[in-house]
Amino acid sequence: MSVLTTEPDAVPAGEEPPDTGERHRLTAVTGLAALSLDAVASVAYGPEAIVLVLAAAGAHGLGCTLPVTLAIAALLVVLVASYRQVIAAFPDGGGSYAVARAHLGERTSLVAAASLVLDYVLNVAVAVTAGVAALTSAFPALYGDRLWLCLAVLALITGVNLRGIVESAKAFIVPTVVFVAAIFVLIVAGLLRSAPVSTAATAGHATVVTGNATSVGVLLLLKAFASGCSALTGVEAIANAVPCFRVPRVRRAQRAEVALGAVLGLMLIGLAVLIGRFHLQPVAGVTVLAQLADASLGHNWAFYVIQFATMVLLALSANTSFGGLPVLLKLLARDNYAPHVFALKADRQVHRHGVLALAVVSAALLVFSGGDTNTLVPMFAIGVFVGFTIAQVGMVRHWRRGRNPGWRGRALLNGSGAVLTGVAAVVVTASKFTEGAWLIVIAVPLLVAGCTTVHRAYGRIGERLGLGRIPQAPHRERSLVLVPVSSLSRLTSEALTAAASLGDEVRAVTVCYPDAEDRTAQHALERSWAQWDPGVPLVRLPCARRSLGRPIAAYVRQVAAAEPGTRVTVLIPETEPERLWQRLLQNQRGAVVAHAVRRETDAVICRLRFRLP
Amino acid sequence: MSVLTTEPDAVPAGEEPPDTGERHRLTAVTGLAALSLDAVASVAYGPEAIVLVLAAAGAHGLGCTLPVTLAIAALLVVLVASYRQVIAAFPDGGGSYAVARAHLGERTSLVAAASLVLDYVLNVAVAVTAGVAALTSAFPALYGDRLWLCLAVLALITGVNLRGIVESAKAFIVPTVVFVAAIFVLIVAGLLRSAPVSTAATAGHATVVTGNATSVGVLLLLKAFASGCSALTGVEAIANAVPCFRVPRVRRAQRAEVALGAVLGLMLIGLAVLIGRFHLQPVAGVTVLAQLADASLGHNWAFYVIQFATMVLLALSANTSFGGLPVLLKLLARDNYAPHVFALKADRQVHRHGVLALAVVSAALLVFSGGDTNTLVPMFAIGVFVGFTIAQVGMVRHWRRGRNPGWRGRALLNGSGAVLTGVAAVVVTASKFTEGAWLIVIAVPLLVAGCTTVHRAYGRIGERLGLGRIPQAPHRERSLVLVPVSSLSRLTSEALTAAASLGDEVRAVTVCYPDAEDRTAQHALERSWAQWDPGVPLVRLPCARRSLGRPIAAYVRQVAAAEPGTRVTVLIPETEPERLWQRLLQNQRGAVVAHAVRRETDAVICRLRFRLP
Repeated sequence: MSVLTTEPDAVPAGEEPPDTGERHRLTAVTGLAALSLDAVASVAYGPEAIVLVLAAAGAHGLGCTLPVTLAIAALLVVLVASYRQVIAAFPDGGGSYAVARAHLGERTSLVAAASLVLDYVLNVAVAVTAGVAALTSAFPALYGDRLWLCLAVLALITGVNLRGIVESAKAFIVPTVVFVAAIFVLIVAGLLRSAPVSTAATAGHATVVTGNATSVGVLLLLKAFASGCSALTGVEAIANAVPCFRVPRVRRAQRAEVALGAVLGLMLIGLAVLIGRFHLQPVAGVTVLAQLADASLGHNWAFYVIQFATMVLLALSANTSFGGLPVLLKLLARDNYAPHVFALKADRQVHRHGVLALAVVSAALLVFSGGDTNTLVPMFAIGVFVGFTIAQVGMVRHWRRGRNPGWRGRALLNGSGAVLTGVAAVVVTASKFTEGAWLIVIAVPLLVAGCTTVHRAYGRIGERLGLGRIPQAPHRERSLVLVPVSSLSRLTSEALTAAASLGDEVRAVTVCYPDAEDRTAQHALERSWAQWDPGVPLVRLPCARRSLGRPIAAYVRQVAAAEPGTRVTVLIPETEPERLWQRLLQNQRGAVVAHAVRRETDAVICRLRFRLP
Repeated sequence: MSVLTTEPDAVPAGEEPPDTGERHRLTAVTGLAALSLDAVASVAYGPEAIVLVLAAAGAHGLGCTLPVTLAIAALLVVLVASYRQVIAAFPDGGGSYAVARAHLGERTSLVAAASLVLDYVLNVAVAVTAGVAALTSAFPALYGDRLWLCLAVLALITGVNLRGIVESAKAFIVPTVVFVAAIFVLIVAGLLRSAPVSTAATAGHATVVTGNATSVGVLLLLKAFASGCSALTGVEAIANAVPCFRVPRVRRAQRAEVALGAVLGLMLIGLAVLIGRFHLQPVAGVTVLAQLADASLGHNWAFYVIQFATMVLLALSANTSFGGLPVLLKLLARDNYAPHVFALKADRQVHRHGVLALAVVSAALLVFSGGDTNTLVPMFAIGVFVGFTIAQVGMVRHWRRGRNPGWRGRALLNGSGAVLTGVAAVVVTASKFTEGAWLIVIAVPLLVAGCTTVHRAYGRIGERLGLGRIPQAPHRERSLVLVPVSSLSRLTSEALTAAASLGDEVRAVTVCYPDAEDRTAQHALERSWAQWDPGVPLVRLPCARRSLGRPIAAYVRQVAAAEPGTRVTVLIPETEPERLWQRLLQNQRGAVVAHAVRRETDAVICRLRFRLP
């Protein structure tokens, strides 16, 4: 998945990459290596999802692994052909949101956006659990703590992203190549054998075959197909990153897309052949990939290398969401569908909110699933297929509008892709509804409703702000600055100096209460004020209740009403503590006054931070 | 306990009570009813604490309940006599903090304050668990959920205090009288019987007798004595509330104190006699008070009335901490030992922090104890006894300084009180060290260290601010106002108007980035600026990194360095959303700029909230 991950400005840490020349861009080969991460990583959980469904029909069912995989490979061919066309039609990088926006209207594009948001979140959860499953397959003692391991990996990725790494698609080339090479070695070695070299990894584990039927139903095959389609997540990545390629961009990207399809298809079919050959059965605690590595290469260093490479690749795959989601949110924010804060080109702190939000939601999903990949994969698949379907329906519309020569063939290709992925989405949703798919069915409409509400609110605000129109000319008004005072110190002097510089008139105000203790303090203040004689009147605001902000706010309203055309400013002086913990020592008078004045008046609030000398 | 609860300004919601006349003040009788709440409520857990310790020595041990109670009653006599003297010596209301501050120096007074703070917190936890224990004794089905019930009761009390109730000592009169009357009915009814009417409440519960010794050791008796002393918490309340009484205040307060001692002593001895007569044994899940009610009155409506009255009284007792702790913190803040925010006579929001902090710490204690009163009672007792001991040692010092006629007798009385409570504190601490007392042993020095650190920091800050000295006269400086701008709207016009009113010179600043998209936006802004022609220059601040606040802060520093004697103000315009949720729609540009400018410069920050028309 990660539809927008590799767009050129998917740089999380607020660093604008310098405008690199053509020679830094991707060729078909480097592009394939750099952009196939997510697709290749899905090999770690896709075949497993098929095996797990088919195990319900025992050995008979497991025998259907290869046919089901071949059907998925056929869908892969359709998808790759379809995305070749998307590349040609949207050379600026598309994604289902962009295609839907161009061809299917607002609501559909928001559905695409909502499913993308969910995909980014689920990608994190799925990749983390699958990575930890690779680890616990190698070290079974850790299996009991898998949820904690998942949360630890998530915390690590979150920490790295909070620090702000400069992410580059090229950083992914080496691990991707290592992983793909390892898988092909595994497949070739397995094909040269007729029986497993080792089954050490599964020793002592219970198999999870849940049935022993003599025939395999159509529904089961459909479910296996739908679950296995999760192996196809990520094939859209290249289509979204066309601008990253060297000219001729479209041609190179198309070649990379085809190569990605070939690599992914070969891996899936090869693994399916081995699953059949070694009569593999799903086992709790050992992934299918780990069993295959064991069977093909033996329980030696090669087995551990494959598990480790899988874990690293999946962690990197989880990491892509942290780069991709902000880009999507930025697009949504620009179109006024998400809060503008996501479009803010700003300092690190804003970015952090997004990273933390993604981490918290992913952690909730991890806890929800108990750290189990196979609970999350169907939910993930739904979102991905909804995106695929929308993108392809959009492409059909695209060809119909253009009516260029051969448009019927192209539309047919995209249309059949849409039907296949649409059916897959429906099957997964229906068959997994009670096991978590309901979450997606609820979340998508909620997200869409949220987006439209935000859009409408921005429309109203823009109207009222007169955005896009030349505003009234500014004018100068008489300025009255009020300074709340409670005692006399260097800070008071500093505040009155600032106030005198800002205002045509300055008044100090002090709130006084009827109790005896306060009366003494008031007299002391008035005496020293008279002695100081700063040339600024001290206005006493009596207040029967113990309130500090309200009397000042009331006075501001009173002054503003009595002297129209005067701009009232409240200047609040505060000391800036030397050390962070000393903020606890501040009396918060300033915050209380600012709060009341902001709530109840239109006055400008000035806060003067006085650094202690 | 609640040493300061009933001081006249223990009014949490920021309401100053009007200065009522004498006739609204307390007589000896109403004072007794109004101020004995905490002391009377401790009857619900004090006898139980004794029985639980003695049960370790089986029936033999339980036979010592009455002698141990008599020893506690003797200590009560000493304490009451001692507090009569405190009333005479500190007619303005004392409390161990005030006595220690007057006679024992800073450090001891801080130890007293720290143990008081802990007492307020523990009082909440003990009263809530004991109240819930009264409830679960009546409805055993709820016993398994007692921790949740405790947290729910705490949430209720917290909620009430967040809303801000106007608390009055008089509101406590009715429930206190009902409870005391019910206990006396129970005792008299029990004395008229020779065998229990009913043991229905304990049916099916396991007794927790843990031993069957033939002799009872001195250490066990000491432990029982020390645990039972928790029944004495609250006897100091009247001494702290002398100003609430009608003249002659001291005489009336002394009479109320003696009456409180008599009521409490009679209740304790009466209950101890019944415990012996009915051969009562501690039972998990049914309080001793519930067993006695059962045995004396039968398992009928009277039993439920007593349980309900106990629960209500204990909840009210927990509530007194919410009124008392803020008063103590205010005293500490005035003496510069606690952050000044606690002394702020201000609007509700500040008070809320204290309520929430107390609730969170109490909730932590509830979870720590698992909702069990008997885990918390010893910790509670330690703090209370430390306070008692310090107050009495202070009184000895007081009499020695005065050397009035008869001072030796008075000093002897207070001195023996100090020794007895001091021994009790040491015994409880030693015997319960591993079961939670370590928490108190760690917390008290930490709190004291915190107070002295705060005190020293305030001293330094006051020195630097020149507090108490007449500061320099204020002067007028040239004023330059900078307005960050990113687009043109009514808000910009409003901001420039405000800036023109405040400044001798106004400059608009805009941060621009090298990417193409931003360049387009910049050109559009510059074009419309030229078209608008507001008479204010638009300064472009180029920035290679995606940073918004830093370039502006850097420009402020540059301007301030280039034009000394000019006061630089940054005016940040923001829209004030109509609805609360629309705050999410704000782009946070203002917050980012304000943060950077505050961190990196000395400029005044003005925030203009523009209400959408």
